[in-house]
Amino acid sequence: MSRTGLLTDHYELTMLDSWVKDGSVHEPAVFEAFARRLPEGRRYGVLAGLGRLLPLVDDFTFDDEEVAWLQERGVVGAETGAYLRDFHFGGDVDAYREGDLYFPGSPVLTVSGTLGECVVLETLVLSVLNHDTAIASAAARMVDAAQGRPLIEMGSRRTHEEAAVAAARAAYLSGFGSTSNLAAGRTYGVPTVGTAAHAFTLAHESEEAAFRSQVAALGVDTTLLVDTYDIAEGIRTAVRVAGPGLGAVRIDSGDLAEESVKARELLDTLGATSTRIVVTSDLDEFVIAALADAPIDGYGVGTRVVTGSGHPTASMVYKLVEVSGRRVSKKSKDKASVGGRKHAFREYDDRGVLVRETFVTAAEPTPTSAQQVQVPVMRAGRTVHAPSLDEVRAFTAQALGTLPRAARTVAAGPPYLTVTPHTDPPGGTMSNPTKALLIVDVQNDFVEGGSLGVDGGRAVAGRISEHLAAHAGDYAVIAASRDWHHGHDTNGGHFAEPGTDPDYVTTWPVHCVSDETGSDYAPELVTDAITHHVRKGMGVPAYSAFEGVTDDGGTLADVLRAAGVTEVDVTGIATDYCVRATALDARREGFAVRLLDGLHAGVAPESSEAALGELAAAGVVL
Amino acid sequence: MSRTGLLTDHYELTMLDSWVKDGSVHEPAVFEAFARRLPEGRRYGVLAGLGRLLPLVDDFTFDDEEVAWLQERGVVGAETGAYLRDFHFGGDVDAYREGDLYFPGSPVLTVSGTLGECVVLETLVLSVLNHDTAIASAAARMVDAAQGRPLIEMGSRRTHEEAAVAAARAAYLSGFGSTSNLAAGRTYGVPTVGTAAHAFTLAHESEEAAFRSQVAALGVDTTLLVDTYDIAEGIRTAVRVAGPGLGAVRIDSGDLAEESVKARELLDTLGATSTRIVVTSDLDEFVIAALADAPIDGYGVGTRVVTGSGHPTASMVYKLVEVSGRRVSKKSKDKASVGGRKHAFREYDDRGVLVRETFVTAAEPTPTSAQQVQVPVMRAGRTVHAPSLDEVRAFTAQALGTLPRAARTVAAGPPYLTVTPHTDPPGGTMSNPTKALLIVDVQNDFVEGGSLGVDGGRAVAGRISEHLAAHAGDYAVIAASRDWHHGHDTNGGHFAEPGTDPDYVTTWPVHCVSDETGSDYAPELVTDAITHHVRKGMGVPAYSAFEGVTDDGGTLADVLRAAGVTEVDVTGIATDYCVRATALDARREGFAVRLLDGLHAGVAPESSEAALGELAAAGVVL
Repeated sequence: MSRTGLLTDHYELTMLDSWVKDGSVHEPAVFEAFARRLPEGRRYGVLAGLGRLLPLVDDFTFDDEEVAWLQERGVVGAETGAYLRDFHFGGDVDAYREGDLYFPGSPVLTVSGTLGECVVLETLVLSVLNHDTAIASAAARMVDAAQGRPLIEMGSRRTHEEAAVAAARAAYLSGFGSTSNLAAGRTYGVPTVGTAAHAFTLAHESEEAAFRSQVAALGVDTTLLVDTYDIAEGIRTAVRVAGPGLGAVRIDSGDLAEESVKARELLDTLGATSTRIVVTSDLDEFVIAALADAPIDGYGVGTRVVTGSGHPTASMVYKLVEVSGRRVSKKSKDKASVGGRKHAFREYDDRGVLVRETFVTAAEPTPTSAQQVQVPVMRAGRTVHAPSLDEVRAFTAQALGTLPRAARTVAAGPPYLTVTPHTDPPGGTMSNPTKALLIVDVQNDFVEGGSLGVDGGRAVAGRISEHLAAHAGDYAVIAASRDWHHGHDTNGGHFAEPGTDPDYVTTWPVHCVSDETGSDYAPELVTDAITHHVRKGMGVPAYSAFEGVTDDGGTLADVLRAAGVTEVDVTGIATDYCVRATALDARREGFAVRLLDGLHAGVAPESSEAALGELAAAGVVL
Repeated sequence: MSRTGLLTDHYELTMLDSWVKDGSVHEPAVFEAFARRLPEGRRYGVLAGLGRLLPLVDDFTFDDEEVAWLQERGVVGAETGAYLRDFHFGGDVDAYREGDLYFPGSPVLTVSGTLGECVVLETLVLSVLNHDTAIASAAARMVDAAQGRPLIEMGSRRTHEEAAVAAARAAYLSGFGSTSNLAAGRTYGVPTVGTAAHAFTLAHESEEAAFRSQVAALGVDTTLLVDTYDIAEGIRTAVRVAGPGLGAVRIDSGDLAEESVKARELLDTLGATSTRIVVTSDLDEFVIAALADAPIDGYGVGTRVVTGSGHPTASMVYKLVEVSGRRVSKKSKDKASVGGRKHAFREYDDRGVLVRETFVTAAEPTPTSAQQVQVPVMRAGRTVHAPSLDEVRAFTAQALGTLPRAARTVAAGPPYLTVTPHTDPPGGTMSNPTKALLIVDVQNDFVEGGSLGVDGGRAVAGRISEHLAAHAGDYAVIAASRDWHHGHDTNGGHFAEPGTDPDYVTTWPVHCVSDETGSDYAPELVTDAITHHVRKGMGVPAYSAFEGVTDDGGTLADVLRAAGVTEVDVTGIATDYCVRATALDARREGFAVRLLDGLHAGVAPESSEAALGELAAAGVVL
């Protein structure tokens, strides 16, 4: 349908009907679209759909028959019917650019206007953004995994026939090179490609006849599908028919790593050294990453890209944040929201790496040190931002380039950032949210009575608890690390071999075994205020808390950066080993570091003294 | 777009172009759509989309501008351009009825016509069937889980805006009661429902004002959303405003089991004993099943139904099976297909339960004992089968009713059936595929030298191997069971308590511990021909192989039925315990049972003799 008014949930019009009756339909209102979280394991999202959405908002109207139907069915009354017959969105929309990154809490799209015109757009806004964003976000990871080799989107047959067109567009803007979908080519200018299916080979009397027919039609630079019968035989036939200048062969079955190696060898033997190898068949970002070392020149991705690689929707919501000049927010369990229209800002380090995304609400002063993320996209119902799809694609590549490399692997991790309220850079106020407290290894085995007990350990634990009672509010992050060793092996030589004596330098008595009480926090440490628990040393020696993993599987450095931390206070056990290593790593990661006096204890006086000297030299404030 | 010709993969037209050039475009051809497998853990699928597909096939045309675009881009030449300008599908389509069950191998849709007109429909056919079927299949499981309580589809905002309309239709045909999607109401007549979102409450000065407004507009029978702030307070306000005749309350957050119990108690206390409780918030078939005992009167399901509950596409493929009167089939690794047009048939037991689905190819005689599954849906390009959506919905309910109860739970299991070539009922021929061989517990601990060694066990193992060498081809299923006990407990009293003597009747020495060699198959048993491995007794006593699970997590009874087995040959150890229990269960499950002479051994002569008498009395042929 060209009108999009009915692509809407029934309750939007029920609410509208009530507001038409009581007159509040014309009150000013602001709604925001955002995601509370990213799909599990994803480090960033790519916002997509805006270029499709704005024309659909422009077409958000109702004709007489539709209005009559709504009235007959009792969805709306006569007065609301009249309102809908005349409806055209006349408000403003501000949004993140299409192709921009987003994180939990990013206000990706803000709709301002009358309560009536804003509320009825909810379903359409979310349908478009959730669908297209899910695909663009998955596609960007596949592009990362392919390391520059071209990707073809070919999943049309695995999704709704119209969704397929949008999917091809979303994959392309995230960096796919082309699509199989002709409507996406015609509608959006996405390059289309395609040669032949197995049916083509089967319909001919022989594979050779099929290849001859295809080469006659498309030239020797075409891609021949060689796995209808036997792959090696198919490749030999392909090169015999097309000559060594054959463009490419496609393999769509079997073990692609193994088959591609065999195909490369065979092609080279046949002199077809420049013939490319394209693979298809159940690919996703993980399979593509696993094929990184295979002699593959291009990938065709179907099902997994059009279904968002396990996350077919982006879980964005559309929430009322202001009405009649009043901020509103919901208090539901696990779904609470922040009231007030939010303006988002980003900060970058001197290499251009994104380090922080924050927001201020309308009443607060605009940060001068940061870049505003939203741009105006509609004003008084007219579209004022309409980049071409190729411009969007270029912007997406640029936005992805502001992420550090570690956030662009397929490995699971926490969101690279979480959007937080803006506070201007370090002012040293009581509640400075750019500080973190690190509590290193305050565990039973490291205090008096433990297998590696440090004198004064229990006292340190008690004093850290007192410090927390007084200052927990000063910290954006309070992270505690624990040694978390295997009981069934030496953890890579970290425990002395059974029957030998530890040297207390690189080998140690058995300690902090993960399922024994020695690895528990010492009882003197009050743990309520700890925001992140870090475990380290699973099967390996690990002194620094920066070597560990959080409960979410992330790293401490990512947690600190995502929270906008710039300064780190270090405490714990032992000064000469794990505290030392943690403080040095914190400096290496670029944080300002303090070692808090009285809140750490060492194994031996000499080595502790040496450690303090080393830390001071590294710029740690003692 | 109203024309659907471009909703097609590029390569379909590339192939067409070649066939137009060489004249084979007019050769007769047959393509079939089918799924090689069901989504992991699903026991059946529900075919959907046919009612949407046929009009789209009728609209599969190209206008002059589209054809010019295809020619400019080099997708097709002038001759093919002319072919496309005149294109209208003029062939035949036969299909399973919309809403019918399907299983791996079911030929759900067969397109017959010229090679050209059949090949170009591939993408459209698969897009529609894969999308709608994924949703209908997930929805049917949710309907099963809801045990008669009504379900509302409300996922429009979580999927592409047009896919949302199709999703509402698919969920309705599988038994959902209504949708939030107005376009689905207008286009397909699906009942629509909706009252208010949190924004409605937030936009009012107070929750009470919002409820008063809604009740004034929609009457006391409406559903009030009570969790914007505090649920208990919301319920009290709702009943104060609407009175005890309030239709329903909706809860969209928190622990729904706990909140619904508290809500029911509070409503009853307030006298609102007939007020219904509707819950929404991340529901799927598993959550619904887990809420079976909660006082909930209806469910709203969003994300998980429109995304197929983890399986957003149905993985159907569309394969050329005949061309120019010649059967064709692909030999690719892991994607081989069966050539020739297939006609599917079903058989039911005397209670109407579906027991078998088979096919014959065109040249074979039509079975007289079974019902043909496909119906003609298009003839010479005209639709000849167009049931109303409510007729489809009624048919779906009837089709689901032919499944046994066990296949309609949310528990994971193998497909209830796999479609196999048809052979007429038991003829006693050498290769009768309706027989199964069961090999019970031929394990190290049950043969000589084992902890519960049975005399003659090794000889029995050897003779079973000889039997397999001669007769493996006679069996559709060869299943071997193993006792697979815990080593760390008594397996529910099955092992004698440590320090006590076993009674060798209900308590036994430790035997067949899963990670010890006693549980391995005895080396005299040649296991190559075994098709299914069944493990039993994990933590509990289990004598019969029918108590175990297969490697897929299914039951032996399901495996046998899915394979069309009617007769079972039983062998193994020990005649007086596990062989006995297995043979008796096989009879109870309705199979004809033989105990094969010389291929079993017992613990004691007396109890073995008694067992044989019992088996004979139960109808087992000795």
